[in-house]
Amino acid sequence: MAPVKVFAPVMSTAATRVVLCLEEVGAEYERVNIDMATGEHKSPAHLARNPFGQVPAFQDGDLVLFESRAIGRYVLRKFKSSNVDLLHESSLEESAMVDVWLDVEAHQYDKVISPIFYQAVIIPRFYGGTTDEKVVEENSEKLGKVLDIYEARLSQTKYLAGDFFSFADLCHYPVTHFVTKVPQVAALLEARPHVKAWWESLESRPACKKVAAEFPQ
Amino acid sequence: MAPVKVFAPVMSTAATRVVLCLEEVGAEYERVNIDMATGEHKSPAHLARNPFGQVPAFQDGDLVLFESRAIGRYVLRKFKSSNVDLLHESSLEESAMVDVWLDVEAHQYDKVISPIFYQAVIIPRFYGGTTDEKVVEENSEKLGKVLDIYEARLSQTKYLAGDFFSFADLCHYPVTHFVTKVPQVAALLEARPHVKAWWESLESRPACKKVAAEFPQ
Repeated sequence: MAPVKVFAPVMSTAATRVVLCLEEVGAEYERVNIDMATGEHKSPAHLARNPFGQVPAFQDGDLVLFESRAIGRYVLRKFKSSNVDLLHESSLEESAMVDVWLDVEAHQYDKVISPIFYQAVIIPRFYGGTTDEKVVEENSEKLGKVLDIYEARLSQTKYLAGDFFSFADLCHYPVTHFVTKVPQVAALLEARPHVKAWWESLESRPACKKVAAEFPQ
Repeated sequence: MAPVKVFAPVMSTAATRVVLCLEEVGAEYERVNIDMATGEHKSPAHLARNPFGQVPAFQDGDLVLFESRAIGRYVLRKFKSSNVDLLHESSLEESAMVDVWLDVEAHQYDKVISPIFYQAVIIPRFYGGTTDEKVVEENSEKLGKVLDIYEARLSQTKYLAGDFFSFADLCHYPVTHFVTKVPQVAALLEARPHVKAWWESLESRPACKKVAAEFPQ
């Protein structure tokens, strides 16, 4: 059986969500670079995979998928084992909590951390531009409020969905990896011991270490 | 067994996603109003249900959930029957397509249609203000591009995830209901026959008719 394919540049944080799932379940996969600098994500070949012209896209035989969280769910379902079950779909209550915190990541967390990532990492490192510190400050303040809720949650349960590691935790890794050294974000983590411990537990996972080593340094 | 509870004002489009699921599966439920005008969504009682101080929240016995799409998944799983199965989780491929188009609704569609809803409906009708036509124009243009992709998809399959009605379709109903008479949106639907037929098929569902009749006129 041909390995599944992930179409995206290595630096794509959305694609990294998918790659992390593949690493966690130990599936074979192939990465196919999409050169966004030359507009390859808007090429007919890529639009056939993802009509919105974004990355990642994903292929498993005849099945072609897009949207990173949806692809992640597919990977985790398909390759689920007694050792690795990050959706907990055999429990109605546990899978509901995974879904809640997946939506929190998508609708509360990502919204405020992505502008920090863009301004403090992407602009200076990849576009040679200058960070708009006002955007970083404003979003760090909002992120602090979100992380207060995470701190309260993580003082009750070891992980976001409960006392088990899930896709909801994993989805936070890619963007967060890049911003933990941004001073405002580092200060937010330092002030919230449960969030900090949770973050360190993510960082120490073999799958996370492997993708981090592959990112452009 | 006590019926499940949905905590939200009737006008909440996010809560309507949950109510539509409950109606589709024929579950008993109780609506508990949250008076947002008096800040009840930020009260300790509501923050205990939804730490982000938003609506809806949901309760089923000891289980308390928030984030409308996550609640919808729970309702559809718990009350799934041979007649009503809007997640298609018994098929790996079909459920993946449901997840893809659920994420499209959340990340592509809602982002551009919600500002139109806010400007063209909420501001004049509930705040007595004046619509910012520039916001409506800009987002209608973006919505047109999103709907071009829907038109292509719906010319291949009857519904978004395939030839079966799913939660992905249903999630589009609440906001869209309010904006189909906004001239720019009406023109976009009129120019895309497959999207228009899809929309009419949504509108004709008993669950959608029932929630539409309950909205403030």
